[in-house]
Amino acid sequence: MKKVNVPWESRPDGCKDVMWRYSKNPIINRYQTANSNSIFNSAVVPFGEGYAGVFRCDNKAVQMNIFVGFSKDGENWDISDEPIKFKGGNTEMIESAYKYDPRITFIEDRYWITWCNGYHGPTIGIAYTFDFKEFYQCENAFLPFNRNGVLFPEKINGMYAMLSRPSDNGHTPFGDIWLSYSPDMKFWGCHRHVMSPAPFEQSAWQCTKVGAGSVPILTDEGWLIFYHGVITTCNGYRYSMGAALLDREDPSKVLYRTQPYLLAPAAPYELQGDVPNVVFPCAALVEDDKVAVYYGAADTCVGLAFGYISEIIKFVKENSL
Amino acid sequence: MKKVNVPWESRPDGCKDVMWRYSKNPIINRYQTANSNSIFNSAVVPFGEGYAGVFRCDNKAVQMNIFVGFSKDGENWDISDEPIKFKGGNTEMIESAYKYDPRITFIEDRYWITWCNGYHGPTIGIAYTFDFKEFYQCENAFLPFNRNGVLFPEKINGMYAMLSRPSDNGHTPFGDIWLSYSPDMKFWGCHRHVMSPAPFEQSAWQCTKVGAGSVPILTDEGWLIFYHGVITTCNGYRYSMGAALLDREDPSKVLYRTQPYLLAPAAPYELQGDVPNVVFPCAALVEDDKVAVYYGAADTCVGLAFGYISEIIKFVKENSL
Amino acid sequence: MKKVNVPWESRPDGCKDVMWRYSKNPIINRYQTANSNSIFNSAVVPFGEGYAGVFRCDNKAVQMNIFVGFSKDGENWDISDEPIKFKGGNTEMIESAYKYDPRITFIEDRYWITWCNGYHGPTIGIAYTFDFKEFYQCENAFLPFNRNGVLFPEKINGMYAMLSRPSDNGHTPFGDIWLSYSPDMKFWGCHRHVMSPAPFEQSAWQCTKVGAGSVPILTDEGWLIFYHGVITTCNGYRYSMGAALLDREDPSKVLYRTQPYLLAPAAPYELQGDVPNVVFPCAALVEDDKVAVYYGAADTCVGLAFGYISEIIKFVKENSL
Amino acid sequence: MKKVNVPWESRPDGCKDVMWRYSKNPIINRYQTANSNSIFNSAVVPFGEGYAGVFRCDNKAVQMNIFVGFSKDGENWDISDEPIKFKGGNTEMIESAYKYDPRITFIEDRYWITWCNGYHGPTIGIAYTFDFKEFYQCENAFLPFNRNGVLFPEKINGMYAMLSRPSDNGHTPFGDIWLSYSPDMKFWGCHRHVMSPAPFEQSAWQCTKVGAGSVPILTDEGWLIFYHGVITTCNGYRYSMGAALLDREDPSKVLYRTQPYLLAPAAPYELQGDVPNVVFPCAALVEDDKVAVYYGAADTCVGLAFGYISEIIKFVKENSL
Amino acid sequence: MKKVNVPWESRPDGCKDVMWRYSKNPIINRYQTANSNSIFNSAVVPFGEGYAGVFRCDNKAVQMNIFVGFSKDGENWDISDEPIKFKGGNTEMIESAYKYDPRITFIEDRYWITWCNGYHGPTIGIAYTFDFKEFYQCENAFLPFNRNGVLFPEKINGMYAMLSRPSDNGHTPFGDIWLSYSPDMKFWGCHRHVMSPAPFEQSAWQCTKVGAGSVPILTDEGWLIFYHGVITTCNGYRYSMGAALLDREDPSKVLYRTQPYLLAPAAPYELQGDVPNVVFPCAALVEDDKVAVYYGAADTCVGLAFGYISEIIKFVKENSL
Amino acid sequence: MKKVNVPWESRPDGCKDVMWRYSKNPIINRYQTANSNSIFNSAVVPFGEGYAGVFRCDNKAVQMNIFVGFSKDGENWDISDEPIKFKGGNTEMIESAYKYDPRITFIEDRYWITWCNGYHGPTIGIAYTFDFKEFYQCENAFLPFNRNGVLFPEKINGMYAMLSRPSDNGHTPFGDIWLSYSPDMKFWGCHRHVMSPAPFEQSAWQCTKVGAGSVPILTDEGWLIFYHGVITTCNGYRYSMGAALLDREDPSKVLYRTQPYLLAPAAPYELQGDVPNVVFPCAALVEDDKVAVYYGAADTCVGLAFGYISEIIKFVKENSL
Repeated sequence: MKKVNVPWESRPDGCKDVMWRYSKNPIINRYQTANSNSIFNSAVVPFGEGYAGVFRCDNKAVQMNIFVGFSKDGENWDISDEPIKFKGGNTEMIESAYKYDPRITFIEDRYWITWCNGYHGPTIGIAYTFDFKEFYQCENAFLPFNRNGVLFPEKINGMYAMLSRPSDNGHTPFGDIWLSYSPDMKFWGCHRHVMSPAPFEQSAWQCTKVGAGSVPILTDEGWLIFYHGVITTCNGYRYSMGAALLDREDPSKVLYRTQPYLLAPAAPYELQGDVPNVVFPCAALVEDDKVAVYYGAADTCVGLAFGYISEIIKFVKENSL
Repeated sequence: MKKVNVPWESRPDGCKDVMWRYSKNPIINRYQTANSNSIFNSAVVPFGEGYAGVFRCDNKAVQMNIFVGFSKDGENWDISDEPIKFKGGNTEMIESAYKYDPRITFIEDRYWITWCNGYHGPTIGIAYTFDFKEFYQCENAFLPFNRNGVLFPEKINGMYAMLSRPSDNGHTPFGDIWLSYSPDMKFWGCHRHVMSPAPFEQSAWQCTKVGAGSVPILTDEGWLIFYHGVITTCNGYRYSMGAALLDREDPSKVLYRTQPYLLAPAAPYELQGDVPNVVFPCAALVEDDKVAVYYGAADTCVGLAFGYISEIIKFVKENSL
Repeated sequence: MKKVNVPWESRPDGCKDVMWRYSKNPIINRYQTANSNSIFNSAVVPFGEGYAGVFRCDNKAVQMNIFVGFSKDGENWDISDEPIKFKGGNTEMIESAYKYDPRITFIEDRYWITWCNGYHGPTIGIAYTFDFKEFYQCENAFLPFNRNGVLFPEKINGMYAMLSRPSDNGHTPFGDIWLSYSPDMKFWGCHRHVMSPAPFEQSAWQCTKVGAGSVPILTDEGWLIFYHGVITTCNGYRYSMGAALLDREDPSKVLYRTQPYLLAPAAPYELQGDVPNVVFPCAALVEDDKVAVYYGAADTCVGLAFGYISEIIKFVKENSL
Repeated sequence: MKKVNVPWESRPDGCKDVMWRYSKNPIINRYQTANSNSIFNSAVVPFGEGYAGVFRCDNKAVQMNIFVGFSKDGENWDISDEPIKFKGGNTEMIESAYKYDPRITFIEDRYWITWCNGYHGPTIGIAYTFDFKEFYQCENAFLPFNRNGVLFPEKINGMYAMLSRPSDNGHTPFGDIWLSYSPDMKFWGCHRHVMSPAPFEQSAWQCTKVGAGSVPILTDEGWLIFYHGVITTCNGYRYSMGAALLDREDPSKVLYRTQPYLLAPAAPYELQGDVPNVVFPCAALVEDDKVAVYYGAADTCVGLAFGYISEIIKFVKENSL
Repeated sequence: MKKVNVPWESRPDGCKDVMWRYSKNPIINRYQTANSNSIFNSAVVPFGEGYAGVFRCDNKAVQMNIFVGFSKDGENWDISDEPIKFKGGNTEMIESAYKYDPRITFIEDRYWITWCNGYHGPTIGIAYTFDFKEFYQCENAFLPFNRNGVLFPEKINGMYAMLSRPSDNGHTPFGDIWLSYSPDMKFWGCHRHVMSPAPFEQSAWQCTKVGAGSVPILTDEGWLIFYHGVITTCNGYRYSMGAALLDREDPSKVLYRTQPYLLAPAAPYELQGDVPNVVFPCAALVEDDKVAVYYGAADTCVGLAFGYISEIIKFVKENSL
Repeated sequence: MKKVNVPWESRPDGCKDVMWRYSKNPIINRYQTANSNSIFNSAVVPFGEGYAGVFRCDNKAVQMNIFVGFSKDGENWDISDEPIKFKGGNTEMIESAYKYDPRITFIEDRYWITWCNGYHGPTIGIAYTFDFKEFYQCENAFLPFNRNGVLFPEKINGMYAMLSRPSDNGHTPFGDIWLSYSPDMKFWGCHRHVMSPAPFEQSAWQCTKVGAGSVPILTDEGWLIFYHGVITTCNGYRYSMGAALLDREDPSKVLYRTQPYLLAPAAPYELQGDVPNVVFPCAALVEDDKVAVYYGAADTCVGLAFGYISEIIKFVKENSL
């Protein structure tokens, strides 16, 4: 990932938290495109002189689809009013009843997009683009039911590697993170269990389910991932954000994992919206030690949170479950 | 329905939506009457020199009942502190454990009120009044379990006609709109299915249940109804508003029906309250091409939304499911 | 109802029960017709020199439909391999996705058949025949969701009267018996609550739901009905049979109602089958003081139980809830 | 309980409610201690020249524990960053997987603390302190599953007396208040049923479950308790506050009990937070006729509500269920 | 417990099981008393020259109560047609909405009976008798919700000791065995967790819940208990029987516990009945090395299973979880 | 598949069914091996001079595992008392918490075994053997949650092909059949939807879920598969057997599929057992036009059903959904 000037705001005075919110949040509002009901759970990458992104925009029929967007500064986005149209990539079978929660990963020569794809249930859709103009859809990675497929930004042991969260066909009340490998982005196997929800007594914010968020960031300490964790309160799910360090050679090994959350719903735009109490990270931009995490808020809009990678790693290691 | 000066506010600058909220919303607050916990899901009609209404006011014991109110301008309401007392109409059996979600329809010579009536479960209560002083309660229209009974403002094929939504005895997770006929407002039959929730992929905001809202408005294109649709999120139900056009001669035929919603919870008083994320239309006032829709917000207060009938009909036809 | 020689077998020696099973049970087996998976919950009446019946036969696709049958002795039945084909009666709208659990009632000049009719959910279908050759289907009595519609064998206060059990659209975990009236078998109203499930502590076999079984029998003590009651055990529903006496003039008044059951699943053909532990009465033949009750067993076959009306009335009065 | 200057603010102009909120609410914020995610459902007592309290602070791992705090005015609190460490009291078995929702009661010579204690499920933990420096944990009062244990401030008929709410091991959808006695704070018995949820038609805000809130206050009219009641809306639980008067000699007898609530979620900090729509009283300070009730708001922060005991008693008696 | 000639039948030829069924099972049939619907889950003890027992007989209203019975040989029982009438023991509060699943324990000078007692939910009722003619009911041991209270046959550390299984108010889908102590059979405390359901992968027959069965038998190896374990299949609960050895001095310590079951539903009277697939031990008679276990079968009748204590202990130790 | 003398019994006189049961059913009993609680849902293939099989034997701890067995005639089986021990095949990661519901397929040079394998949830385990002595376990085919993996007996379009039924982690209330491909039995992809449950009105026996049963049989009309279908009754699941014809070149295309079932629970050993009302096919032996289907009965034992392939194909085509 190229290092560019990521969006940034210094830690507020008096703030002792490892990560903090952008004061201009939400940076993307629910009605920002022509027909949108909500824009959230979206992914961005450095591209050209600025940034490109793939955005989940539910329209006013509450149909879920993904849209391309561009930005010079990572903060002000020009998002298309029309969803991405895909051509066949390694297959002609590109059926899709809906698309949501995209991630973007640059590997070798192209940008890979993964998302939750509707093909007789939710599964992991895969596509690639070189230019964010032409998009080529590939075979779905897995059988349903699956969500939150996130590719590693480089091959591991010579194979593509993907995190995902097997689910059921509803508001799944369980969820572990898994790792799968592919020699060719078409056939997948060597599935390994990575991590489960935490015991309620030890870390209740992540006791119902966990799922990968942003593309893993390679550090000296291993792969750093931001992930979401869910607790079931008497009034529904509450989504918060944590981080983990995975082994560089075998990312199915969790080295450290935050017992406390890094960010949990507390701002008004996180506490109310189409689904109250949701913080859901989907992308991270890195510039030297700075990291800017893009997260969906209340299934309604997009927020930004900032931190220093070195501090986050220190925190994860010192507060590991 | 007499044409009078309905409450009105022009479309805000820059707004491209077919319908828009009143800037003074909510027009009725939760504590407006002596013992109220909430006032919402209420109905109004032109009456005399102004307007009369029947209001759902839950008291601070959270008992549900309906109250009469009057207004000169349709916006500022004087609502009784005491619930309506009914006399026997076409029956002496006027048991009622609770009353909620009223609608009012003027037919021929009197005002008919329908509501969800508690008689060993929720069913459709019926009453009439000539003057909003004396009210006469009739036989319940149907067996339980039923809600959202809405009368047509004129006889169809010589019979009274009512829309309703059969349900169960709880927070019903399903719901279709039906049409029934009566020769005499006492015996009902010829039940016809009108419309079902939409498939999730096509129009998710109305994929759990749908129910009639305001009294149908006769237009050149057929009967225009505002209705509510519900989606089940991981944190509960979300109620939005759409519209449909029904065949003039046989209103069980749906000619057009909005795929996108017309209004969905987004304002603070819709997003939080006793039941967050509810927009629930129960009445509409018409003046020439203008329409003012009264809707319950968050099961807590009453809001107003405006639009032009011609634009709404055009939208429904061009964005039909 | 004409008095003929009903099927009969004397009370077994030593038996002290008010009602007892036929030793040749089940009298109708699951595979008795060409394509049947099961034959149960069926109705019979005296007809000509013997009996006619309408039978629920689920075929091997487990589609539910009703079939005509004839018998000379009420015990050996010749049941059609083809379901009844209906013509329009008081309507041309005779849609039916499925038909099950029929009852037959002779009123004035014809045989009325009621059943659970599939029209966007289960409701009460109505038809008549004069000869069990031609059948005329009428408007459904009610909106869904409803089951177990049973007509009284004569008009009450000048109107047709029907018992039914409003339900939901699944394996309903609740159910009361209601009474509705019609001047014309087309429009229904004046709905009255008749009886609820019993408190668990008082009569647990009927604590989940109750529903009318056979056509009411007019006696000096009022209308005698056999009904089913359901308890929810940790392994599912268990259906048993009780009886009640309803007021002759106002059958919504329950005069007496059995606290103990009259018959509960205990024979092998009642304890196992497609739905274990079901005794479900749908018809009764009367000859002087004798009564023969036809009941579905385990949703699989048909059994007969016998008793004396005078004894049953005495038992109901002395063991009333 | 010593009478001191309790926190106080006069009834706002125009307010006709029996109880009213403090204008500076919430008095304790979610992030007030070093690692807290939320501070709510907490208890206070007069102590020394001011007040002491035991606070539920969930940390950012969402682990539940209780913390000591001190205040001069009852409004500004200095809460420890470290949870209370207990020594063995009448037992060495002081296992605790989690602690939450504390209450404090002064009896004879010491302060007794009760809370929901995790020992193979939630049960009632008991401890005492003389000085809020040393805390001694005793045997759990009951078998799981139990919550909301509240001690009376003096012995009744020579025995310690405790209210509690037996539950299940999840988000319990039922709950009655019970009374139990102990000769020695170790063995408990003579359990008596006190009160159940109200019928929906009579007082829906308390129709799902009820539980004791603050320590009972002895008045001329009996024991005054503030309690919480819960309704299940289609979007989850809503917790409100009522009051009851229990017989002085036999507190299992409910003399009066509010049909309307005294306080229900309506302020922003009650309507949104980790669990929206929660008002949950845990303590009350009394000074002459004034009472200041401390309640958890939205499972996130602490609010104060004021009233006059004489007015509350009058209200309870005149508006009794 | 006095040693008498217990019912007995040698192990069948070829049988390699540790315990085996009596060939005359069921020894008590469902209709054995005047009004019974079922007789099961019952307890017996040596008494006089033979045996006395307390039997759960649900009547034909399916009301649950307990009845006294006597037998000379432990196999042929004379059971009363009238339920036991209790006088006040250590309390006058002997309310009981229902009674079921009794156990009997002789301690020092009298027979103690425990059962599931209905007092605003299921809890543990206690009574004593000296002669099985006069019965004295005491305070309920615990708050609801609780079932399967079983007393130890002697005091432990100077106190009465009871096993029980806290539950909820329905068909509880969880259940651990607990130990509680009492100095006086009136106040109970010092509750200790004894054992949980087993992990599905290790011993699925006991993975949903476990509960004490017969009165513990003191052996050289500790307290031997027979207990029931439950698995949840897709068609409901299946109850089987295992055994455990508890520490003599501290019976909350489980020394050994069967990984395989000792007896599981396989005989026709266990596989079908009011609740199919239930084997539920409630009593055991011991004579030297022989043990005869009485168990409820399919919630319908009573069966006997035999074994040698030495073999059972050996099996428990060699096949421990 | 080699053609050998399959077990066989002629169609009984008077039987008009397409398939019929063996009169000696069940051919394998629940207690046939040393520690078995039940033996069911098992697979067989021709091997050497007779047959080999892999059997699901749950032991008396109700742990699920698979065991090898041999038979000369396909009817009398010698099953090992010890579960199969696997060596690493194409992986060393052969973790398995449990194994159940095996199938066997001969492809090219070896026998492939698939089963439901416990690795952090149920997924599809794969192994091969040449001789039924040495077994080599490979990578699991898919991520959890999955069951009923069945391999085609030859490569299709140059790739291995497998049917499976994605599920959740419990008693899954949904289930479609899918097809996946692999170049190497290690990586899988090109997942295609094959068939869904049938609409209730059209074929209720298969309206909850469907799953592949035996290894597909290549016929002139395409691939013939026996599959199970499930209906949810008020007392649980009922499993029956149907058949389908899949396109030879693209087996994701369903050419025909039985609307009626071929075999449904009706024999005593199918109606009662550990899970009542289950017929679950797992293997089929073919000899010329004869086919012998092995099916699990009531999750307890193994039965055999016979038919003629030509008749079955004719029936499927003439009775297709």
